[in-house]
Amino acid sequence: MSEAMTKPHERLAEHLAPGMEAVNTLIRARMASEHAPRIPEVTAHLVEAGGKRLRPMLTLAAAELCGYEGPYHVHLAATVEFIHTATLLHDDVVDESAQRRGRPTANLLWDNKSSVLVGDYLFSRSFQLMVETGSLRVLDILANASATIAEGEVLQLTAAQDLATTEAIYLQVVRGKTAALFSAATEVGGVIAGAPEEQVQALFNYGDALGIAFQIVDDLLDYSGSTGATGKNVGDDFRERKLTLPVIKAVAKSDAEERAFWRRVIEKGDQREGDLEQAIMLLNKHGALEAARQDALEYARKACTSLSVLPEHPLRAMLDDLAEFVVSRIS
Amino acid sequence: MSEAMTKPHERLAEHLAPGMEAVNTLIRARMASEHAPRIPEVTAHLVEAGGKRLRPMLTLAAAELCGYEGPYHVHLAATVEFIHTATLLHDDVVDESAQRRGRPTANLLWDNKSSVLVGDYLFSRSFQLMVETGSLRVLDILANASATIAEGEVLQLTAAQDLATTEAIYLQVVRGKTAALFSAATEVGGVIAGAPEEQVQALFNYGDALGIAFQIVDDLLDYSGSTGATGKNVGDDFRERKLTLPVIKAVAKSDAEERAFWRRVIEKGDQREGDLEQAIMLLNKHGALEAARQDALEYARKACTSLSVLPEHPLRAMLDDLAEFVVSRIS
Repeated sequence: MSEAMTKPHERLAEHLAPGMEAVNTLIRARMASEHAPRIPEVTAHLVEAGGKRLRPMLTLAAAELCGYEGPYHVHLAATVEFIHTATLLHDDVVDESAQRRGRPTANLLWDNKSSVLVGDYLFSRSFQLMVETGSLRVLDILANASATIAEGEVLQLTAAQDLATTEAIYLQVVRGKTAALFSAATEVGGVIAGAPEEQVQALFNYGDALGIAFQIVDDLLDYSGSTGATGKNVGDDFRERKLTLPVIKAVAKSDAEERAFWRRVIEKGDQREGDLEQAIMLLNKHGALEAARQDALEYARKACTSLSVLPEHPLRAMLDDLAEFVVSRIS
Repeated sequence: MSEAMTKPHERLAEHLAPGMEAVNTLIRARMASEHAPRIPEVTAHLVEAGGKRLRPMLTLAAAELCGYEGPYHVHLAATVEFIHTATLLHDDVVDESAQRRGRPTANLLWDNKSSVLVGDYLFSRSFQLMVETGSLRVLDILANASATIAEGEVLQLTAAQDLATTEAIYLQVVRGKTAALFSAATEVGGVIAGAPEEQVQALFNYGDALGIAFQIVDDLLDYSGSTGATGKNVGDDFRERKLTLPVIKAVAKSDAEERAFWRRVIEKGDQREGDLEQAIMLLNKHGALEAARQDALEYARKACTSLSVLPEHPLRAMLDDLAEFVVSRIS
């Protein structure tokens, strides 16, 4: 099969297979609990559900790309996956979700209590893994990322359904939801490899831009995608009254009548037959979908450009392809 | 007023006043969030409610006792208080509590979501504070303590109302609920001061034994105290079907009929008029209250004995008094 036929994250997975094997072994060992069997039960439910493991792959890729030959990129990749899993557990409690990755959520199968406490456990375990690397800088980066994640989620809670939400607030929320862990995942790979500052910064920039592009694409597909491509239905965000980037852009350009519409459907949540179509019409009228699309493409370009200071390497080409792939569904 | 008239934690507070002032200033600075004002709102509600601040005082005391003159014991004391506050926020979600320190809980005033996410934020902030101390050993100790806390809470969740709960499981739960953070608080004080290993170990042992004594006393007062002394009513643990140490001891000695009683009131939660009195009668019949009392006194003695390898210092005497004070309500 030609390279063009496989997706970039599949090529990454193939290239990084031995490292990811070690990551999975470490994850399984560390999610165990001598005393509380509920912990591995809950964690296994999520960890074995088979997400793409994109974040740990980013860490391994960044470290290898910068010539790392030690063992600790595996610890950091497991750390990143643990932090991710902990935030998923807590998110599902916060969002009162019933499904994640096509399966019932832990809060539904067990209870909210287990999701909160097992999330806390994984978060603690992730810090233990970081300590083992012996790098205070890595701890600094991931503690900061964790704070940004929690802060972004609180911000999303308070900014939700508030039409005054600006693009700056949106970006802050997106960094919390997605980009902060992406950028930390790539940055710590460079740091553990002892890469020059310029390369570490480039890896941070790549992860940050990739994460933001990823989220904007998600926003866009919710108003324009087909259900098959995304696993969610067109209009889900609208029905959940989310202020995604296209809506923020359309609200900013709205006249009094349109503002009243947005206030009714988003702020008050009074949605009627035909409102989704009306919303899409307004998004198109103000070029909000197109403008958000341009933003996503710009972030993807930024991600690719960042890579230029990194060494020539098959992994660099894969990361480049990955950024392009993320926006391919809206190009 | 003579020394005997003030309580040991009040004398500690007086002696440590300048350091605690710095701790409070740091806590206020670090609980701020540039982007999400909900965070300091929720945190202030709990932090300003005025707990005794026993844990951060233990850290300051341990550091000063070991001759520390640097600035980082303040960071560690704030860290310990942040971890404590984060666990309180998550506990109140897990326990669905409505009151804490005589005030409505954050989950009641705001919502569970805010309590979960603000707890996560404080936990991340606590790791940032630790990183600033530059001590990987401190990070190791506190990451381990955090894991023990979460593990203990999960264990409590699954062991709750299970008559098969042993004293070993009870101890594990208590270490998670109380002792792990007490022992980490004292241990990191010694570590940051660069104290000899023997002293660091002694500080750990002191905090561990103090925390366990503290919890057993709490268990005992629930069956024998007066409401004024504890702020909770006699029988609260019984009504909440908690397997506290006296109950575990009585269950271990129960005959078939008594076992059926415990199964009905604790496992099935079918409690009737007169059951509390019956439970107290059984606790007394098997000497379970007296045995638990002896355990508490033994842990308090262990705490005091641990202090012997530490330097002569007014703080050492106060820590000694504190351990005696903890059990004074049952002596």
